[in-house]
Amino acid sequence: LTLALGKQHIIVEDTAVRHAVILAGGGGTRLWPLSHRQLPKQLLPFGAGGKTLLAAAAQRACAATGTSAPALVVTGAGFLQATKLALPNARFIAEPCARNTAAAIGLAAVILHQQDPDAIMIATPADQHVSNEVEFIARLQRAAEVVEQRDVICTLGIVPTRPETGFGYLQITDRLSTINQPSMTALEVERFVEKPSQQIAKEYVAGGKHLWNAGIFVVRAARLIADIKRFLPELSAGLAAIGDAHQRGPEAFESALAEIFPTLPSISIDHGVMEKTTGVVTIAADVGWDDIGSWASIPSVLGKDANGNSCAGNVLVIDGSDNVVVSERGVITVLGVSNIAVIRRGDAVLVIPLDRAQDVKQVVEQLQARGLNKYL
Amino acid sequence: LTLALGKQHIIVEDTAVRHAVILAGGGGTRLWPLSHRQLPKQLLPFGAGGKTLLAAAAQRACAATGTSAPALVVTGAGFLQATKLALPNARFIAEPCARNTAAAIGLAAVILHQQDPDAIMIATPADQHVSNEVEFIARLQRAAEVVEQRDVICTLGIVPTRPETGFGYLQITDRLSTINQPSMTALEVERFVEKPSQQIAKEYVAGGKHLWNAGIFVVRAARLIADIKRFLPELSAGLAAIGDAHQRGPEAFESALAEIFPTLPSISIDHGVMEKTTGVVTIAADVGWDDIGSWASIPSVLGKDANGNSCAGNVLVIDGSDNVVVSERGVITVLGVSNIAVIRRGDAVLVIPLDRAQDVKQVVEQLQARGLNKYL
Repeated sequence: LTLALGKQHIIVEDTAVRHAVILAGGGGTRLWPLSHRQLPKQLLPFGAGGKTLLAAAAQRACAATGTSAPALVVTGAGFLQATKLALPNARFIAEPCARNTAAAIGLAAVILHQQDPDAIMIATPADQHVSNEVEFIARLQRAAEVVEQRDVICTLGIVPTRPETGFGYLQITDRLSTINQPSMTALEVERFVEKPSQQIAKEYVAGGKHLWNAGIFVVRAARLIADIKRFLPELSAGLAAIGDAHQRGPEAFESALAEIFPTLPSISIDHGVMEKTTGVVTIAADVGWDDIGSWASIPSVLGKDANGNSCAGNVLVIDGSDNVVVSERGVITVLGVSNIAVIRRGDAVLVIPLDRAQDVKQVVEQLQARGLNKYL
Repeated sequence: LTLALGKQHIIVEDTAVRHAVILAGGGGTRLWPLSHRQLPKQLLPFGAGGKTLLAAAAQRACAATGTSAPALVVTGAGFLQATKLALPNARFIAEPCARNTAAAIGLAAVILHQQDPDAIMIATPADQHVSNEVEFIARLQRAAEVVEQRDVICTLGIVPTRPETGFGYLQITDRLSTINQPSMTALEVERFVEKPSQQIAKEYVAGGKHLWNAGIFVVRAARLIADIKRFLPELSAGLAAIGDAHQRGPEAFESALAEIFPTLPSISIDHGVMEKTTGVVTIAADVGWDDIGSWASIPSVLGKDANGNSCAGNVLVIDGSDNVVVSERGVITVLGVSNIAVIRRGDAVLVIPLDRAQDVKQVVEQLQARGLNKYL
């Protein structure tokens, strides 16, 4: 597979069936100040061996294609240059604005399907942590095999390790413990469940019939296009028009993207398609997966020292535990505090309790309101 | 008064009797990282109107001399250049190393006495906050009058505003409330009291017979020299030798300082002289005085906003109260924490609870131990 992007005109040159698609549309808010408007979260060096999260995600998905073909990365136009630097061999679709995951994955499906009607997409977000990458890749490959054999959408269902209220869940028919894990059986997904309350999340973890929805799935492009047409006709029409323009050439594609893409409905692929369609299955995955949602999730990436502190850069912690301290430059010294994130990038410093890590967006909003965009 | 300092040779050219002497030997540890090895605490811009603490102290003491003569500043050789920049019109004695306050003030006394046998020293530390400077100056002037009339050492005794355990106290004979304050009566000091326990400090504040020892005093140079000879003969001999060298000229003075000063006993003027001598009086002063001992004392200097936060520089505090947030450069953003100091200078960031502000020295020691002196 080669996707040549002159002016964003993607040509599939060979006949590979499996295609890695990376959704890299995220922004720089939740891990501010380390991430920022020119460096979204997926470009932070939190992948294995100090790779970017994006590069790590692309390598895992590409490995599951069984080919050496590069990934197709859907990203925001504002991040395109930085994203290309992080993943020079990939191919890119640059969204002129964010329209959520249904539009992003749908556009990738339309483009891939034009040039490979049998295309199977191995789609994953760009900003996730996986500690056991080999097992993860094996499950993606198994999912592709399932999709090659059956007309289903095959997700990865992460075996939950805590009663997380920030994720959606996949409800399966049988208790997971009754299933022979190493066989990587495709389990029927009974329904998608929204982010639960703490109490319900605890029941899910205890019950063994719910897996985390990680936003990772494998699907034939043709099947996804059909589902979008059925459940999201307005999106389908817009994507078809952009697809037609793509067939007319790079200039037409560019101008269709600029004109039509911003008018597409903004809806997630989960809400728009997955929760409504039938024939969704999942492969259970207990692979050290985690979402990199905020500073509170960084300890799973950086690990912890003997005092429970997760540190990166030139950092000194005295009499403190369970902190996240990251210094991109200079030195950060912390004494006598616990459960706090202290983050510095360039000229911006953030101090926030880890249990309020989601509120970083308030900080970003206030800086915007004060005209301090240069720090964002 | 003009003190010409060629190579540290001080010549008193007129006959002024009162001389401002500023003890500016402090270092950069307790307000690190804003203060540091090249910028001691007294050079921080926490004086009235953004002046350095040193300049503010010198202006107050000079005002009390009743002349336009500049202050004599005793400082560490390592800070000399920065100190001269902060106070270009002053005269300086540069100590080759720190030997505590008895040596510093004693050396100033010897030098001043050589050229003005009637010299009265108005001596104050360089790193204190005074909110009511006019009342403070009036009390220094009153102290000088007392010393002109009687053979005493006249201190300022600060009316305590809290049961502070970090200061020594002056015990007076009568309850302060029975004394007519505006008269600025010189009160007999019965004894000097060491830093008390919390319980005893509370009794002191309630009892009204104890004042804070602020290290501010007015004394004839001849009287101080005699007291040092009586109570600290070893120091007296060393200072006399340095004084003799000063009379022989700048080169002799320089080399005597370098050779003899480091051998002098290191003892405070309080322990070495004040606690042992007789005839110590005090003027009670309720003038918004405070020691700038640590980040915990900065709110008295910077003031507090509606949420009790004391901020300087480009700072954003959301959902937090009673913090001290100082950013010398860039922006510091704080959300959801209270009673914390977050300080940044250049490439160094410090986060510490205000009730552990004294432990900044641990941070400095650890950085030294790790060879990170460039941040100190």
